[in-house]
Amino acid sequence: MDARSKPKYLTVRRPRIVIVGAGFAGLSAAQALRDAAADILVIDRHNHHLFQPLLYQVATASLSPADIAQPIRSILKDQANARVLLAEVTGIDTAAKAVLLVDSSSIAYDYLLVATGARHSYFGNDDWAEHAPGIKSLDDATRVRANILLAFERAEFAREAYRRAALLTFVVIGGGPTGVELTGAIAELARKSITSDFRSISARVARIILIEAGPRLLPSMPEALSDEAEKSLRSLGVEIRLNQPVTDIKAGSIMLGRHTIRAETIVWAAGVRGSAAADWLGGPSDRAGRVAVNADFSIPGQGEIYVAGDTAAYRQENGCPLPGIAPAAKQAGAYIGAHMKARIEGKPTPKAFAYRNFGNLATIGRSKAVADFGWIKLKGLPAWLVWSIAHIYFLIGFRNRLSVAVSWIWSYVTDQRGARLITGRDCETSISMRRASQC
Amino acid sequence: MDARSKPKYLTVRRPRIVIVGAGFAGLSAAQALRDAAADILVIDRHNHHLFQPLLYQVATASLSPADIAQPIRSILKDQANARVLLAEVTGIDTAAKAVLLVDSSSIAYDYLLVATGARHSYFGNDDWAEHAPGIKSLDDATRVRANILLAFERAEFAREAYRRAALLTFVVIGGGPTGVELTGAIAELARKSITSDFRSISARVARIILIEAGPRLLPSMPEALSDEAEKSLRSLGVEIRLNQPVTDIKAGSIMLGRHTIRAETIVWAAGVRGSAAADWLGGPSDRAGRVAVNADFSIPGQGEIYVAGDTAAYRQENGCPLPGIAPAAKQAGAYIGAHMKARIEGKPTPKAFAYRNFGNLATIGRSKAVADFGWIKLKGLPAWLVWSIAHIYFLIGFRNRLSVAVSWIWSYVTDQRGARLITGRDCETSISMRRASQC
Repeated sequence: MDARSKPKYLTVRRPRIVIVGAGFAGLSAAQALRDAAADILVIDRHNHHLFQPLLYQVATASLSPADIAQPIRSILKDQANARVLLAEVTGIDTAAKAVLLVDSSSIAYDYLLVATGARHSYFGNDDWAEHAPGIKSLDDATRVRANILLAFERAEFAREAYRRAALLTFVVIGGGPTGVELTGAIAELARKSITSDFRSISARVARIILIEAGPRLLPSMPEALSDEAEKSLRSLGVEIRLNQPVTDIKAGSIMLGRHTIRAETIVWAAGVRGSAAADWLGGPSDRAGRVAVNADFSIPGQGEIYVAGDTAAYRQENGCPLPGIAPAAKQAGAYIGAHMKARIEGKPTPKAFAYRNFGNLATIGRSKAVADFGWIKLKGLPAWLVWSIAHIYFLIGFRNRLSVAVSWIWSYVTDQRGARLITGRDCETSISMRRASQC
Repeated sequence: MDARSKPKYLTVRRPRIVIVGAGFAGLSAAQALRDAAADILVIDRHNHHLFQPLLYQVATASLSPADIAQPIRSILKDQANARVLLAEVTGIDTAAKAVLLVDSSSIAYDYLLVATGARHSYFGNDDWAEHAPGIKSLDDATRVRANILLAFERAEFAREAYRRAALLTFVVIGGGPTGVELTGAIAELARKSITSDFRSISARVARIILIEAGPRLLPSMPEALSDEAEKSLRSLGVEIRLNQPVTDIKAGSIMLGRHTIRAETIVWAAGVRGSAAADWLGGPSDRAGRVAVNADFSIPGQGEIYVAGDTAAYRQENGCPLPGIAPAAKQAGAYIGAHMKARIEGKPTPKAFAYRNFGNLATIGRSKAVADFGWIKLKGLPAWLVWSIAHIYFLIGFRNRLSVAVSWIWSYVTDQRGARLITGRDCETSISMRRASQC
């Protein structure tokens, strides 16, 4: 039979849903659409979903990249209406209802969710990024890991005391949960895990400094827990500098007003802003570049476009902003999935989104953490156990959970780190031995 | 007391031993010198010792880099007479008895062991390296892993059949143990682990081709085991081409005489040659660039310099070359360490080195392997169990062993791979969607 003579049936095209970003919001929206009569395409520029809350543990050599990442495809493999595309989005043509890709091709959508997360904000000082990298991707984390480990390698053979001191000074900027957790992890690495392997470095020499522009650590938590975090960090030998905004960062040094700290390793955990999505969409956004959204996460005047996660500036009914943490992003994604599904099926959309706060957690080191569940506040070992169990539970994939549990138990018992690798910079790892011929 | 007036005692300087390369030979020499009255410096351009026999499993997403690598420092941390330096060696000044580093500094030695391993040999066609990378380092392995996984990602959205076919054709060049193991792992990845995650790719489409210039696979093993390996690979759907020397490799294609195979992923496992050490030392070397050594691994005319592992061309008493495998390198290193120690202590040096062959093993896939112990030959599940236990046993570090065992058991039960990450190439991972706007 000639193809052209094939009888044509009347077909109703299934709506196309495009989800840009396979973070917590994007993935949970896709999963909420499991039974929807729609074709879902999830686009991400990485092939993996990343469990971002544990990224700092990759940067400090506790976990391997594969422990906190899972191929997006694997997660969605049993969902027949979903496809996954590894690609870089460069813009959105809202008039043509199409997502634009880096090679100038485009993908049409009927409904769109933009959940592309956040990037670092250097408050207008983009040249600081080179000297004070942040941690947002696996590549970022392995780069920071290499920086930290190389600093120790170089310090071991540094001849001048001032040079060794700069190599062994680690500065974290930003006293939010990421900064606090990262600082605690660096302190444990420097004081316990690593120094026994070196001959010229003693555990006491390393300086770990946490800088916060505001008056206290963990500003999103109750003051009692801020104090507890400060106490725990100090017990690990961390210097904490509150009320000290950074005024400049150069290679190997950081300025706090007229005071200069010489440090070879500086990590940025101070500010984030929304991804480029606000530019793509052209609508109103807040100071941090996050897109203003309606109560149902759609954007004003473009009801078929939703924005969620760290990309959105969502104001809850009580007037508070929705926090930029994984559980909030997941809940938003699930709500949006249900909202789209109802619209596709012509049913009433779900009632207003209500964020359910399961608590705030931050870990500081072995057996040290703070947790705020509203009705109860925990600190020390109980908080740490809750933190560990919650993070293992929410990790995606049985193998990752087991692998992370094994790594943590091993670290707990031995104080050693399993992932102390310097990779990805074959040409830069050699240590200068000039003037060290008699080593 | 003035420093200059300090009384001077007669001190006997401890001999300085420099070991370049912390592979199997270098590390086991350092460990054999544990009780020697000497100062040992181990120099490597990576911070980790690599368990090379399992590198192909990183390239095929079964294991994570941290599973097969351990910081050199951690391994030697309890050996008080040993220090570790992360640095790149560029040459050896044999007259001045000094090792030259990349920054033009130098390190003096009394005894020297050069064990810098091997690199790939493209038999004079160095331009092939770009299109057919080999696997020698963790960075090589993660790059090949990204190539393989990206080929599937691109094939999923390829519109033209010829393009999809080229993307799903994987060629391994070289039928030795590395080539056989790598081919088996790619076949299992393509046929079992990965294809269920894709919508447009069925498990049958992928072509996996193993090319060998000689008449049989595993030429170092008995013919019966070569046949068994061939049979096992064919049962995984691998095409095997024997007696087919490669005549040219270009981007995306490989020539065998007048026959061209279009393949986007080509991996080189065909030839190795000694590292640059032969050039450094200036002495005689064999065709593969390996340094000719005496029966005690010292080099002719330079008794204080030893060469071992893949860098040395060592001929056993029976006339056979010492095989380029981990157990042989370990035994050589231990012998050299004992030899140096005896010379330092003025004692008789150990009698001639005798290689103890514990057997030859190669694995092909789940429950498939071949093993030759001389007195017994194994194949199938028994060989695979011996292979698994031997490799877990010889892995350095409790945590790595446990982590590898967990990964293997998980893969065995679920057919899934735990380390399917595309990392390290943020800018290149986007898939061309040109002409795919209606995807």
